[in-house]
Amino acid sequence: MSTRSNAKRADALRSIDAIVQAAVDCLGRNPEASLSEIARAAGVGRVTLYAHFASRAEVVDAAMTLAIGKGNQALEAVDLAGDPRLALARLVEASWHLVDQARALLVAAQKELPPGRIRELHSGPAARVETLIARGRAEGVFRTDLPIPWLVNVLHSVMHSAADEIRSGNLAPDRAAAYITATVLAAFTPPGRPVPEPSTQT
Amino acid sequence: MSTRSNAKRADALRSIDAIVQAAVDCLGRNPEASLSEIARAAGVGRVTLYAHFASRAEVVDAAMTLAIGKGNQALEAVDLAGDPRLALARLVEASWHLVDQARALLVAAQKELPPGRIRELHSGPAARVETLIARGRAEGVFRTDLPIPWLVNVLHSVMHSAADEIRSGNLAPDRAAAYITATVLAAFTPPGRPVPEPSTQT
Repeated sequence: MSTRSNAKRADALRSIDAIVQAAVDCLGRNPEASLSEIARAAGVGRVTLYAHFASRAEVVDAAMTLAIGKGNQALEAVDLAGDPRLALARLVEASWHLVDQARALLVAAQKELPPGRIRELHSGPAARVETLIARGRAEGVFRTDLPIPWLVNVLHSVMHSAADEIRSGNLAPDRAAAYITATVLAAFTPPGRPVPEPSTQT
Repeated sequence: MSTRSNAKRADALRSIDAIVQAAVDCLGRNPEASLSEIARAAGVGRVTLYAHFASRAEVVDAAMTLAIGKGNQALEAVDLAGDPRLALARLVEASWHLVDQARALLVAAQKELPPGRIRELHSGPAARVETLIARGRAEGVFRTDLPIPWLVNVLHSVMHSAADEIRSGNLAPDRAAAYITATVLAAFTPPGRPVPEPSTQT
């Protein structure tokens, strides 16, 4: 009896994992992917999907949680010590393509989840960037005349901008990190201080 | 007979104007507004709407054309002569709220129109910004190490970023132009040159 219920539970966990992974893939390609498509991609029936998730919002929330968790893991591997400008360059190098991949998923999330929930899901990666910016301000290399949340948002916007440019064929993917870094390091420079030369950025 | 057909034609033009204006308003609030909603807001029946527009894409195209035309008119009034940095500050002041207003409409357009058509519709305002950036580069005050289309996109992204921050309650609308200008003037500064002080920006 207990062995059978263990096996059933393991089955359920496998189905849930498959559904969430399929949701990341399907919604990452098309934010309007239907739950039927997601169930099909996961190799489960609609009934199984609805047995585990009460609504589309729950599926999107689980997909977003998985994608951001993976992104956070990648960011944890980045060394953010030393000159904050060089650390920012390494952060951009490691994360701009995550932002790109998560775009369509974010569009799905913005439709299904309240803004507070989306901010909460992003709080891990956002905190990492905020801490780095705060250290750069304390060390006098990043500007203090604009608030930290604004600077975080500028970084995020410029990364999205790069993704747009790649998609429309105006930017070669291998130049994206350099363009983003050159732009953001200039945008973060305190008024009156010189913009860093590219040679000091890498 | 000719008087009657003139009157009918005047009626048709009035209906079309009302539909396009209603489309700008409805899609500007909600990019998924239905054609029925737009017809209702225009005070015409669905049959009348379909008599003038063969598809949702045609309605969206007409709305986008009207909105961008109005934006272009506002930008034509901006003096872009003199120091390119001050000219850019004036351009931001006059246009950031247009970008904000056109956001939802752009989302609708991105669903219905091919990317080439959207770029074509934006070519008027984009040309104005490109010309200003090119002049700033020629005068040595804007950077030449990043391509002009990238710099145009950075300006656009930072304006969108401000609209997001206002919507999420993180930015007071009356500070938006100053934040955008301070950020973009720094981002456009040539490496090795000092970022302009806020006093020289206005």
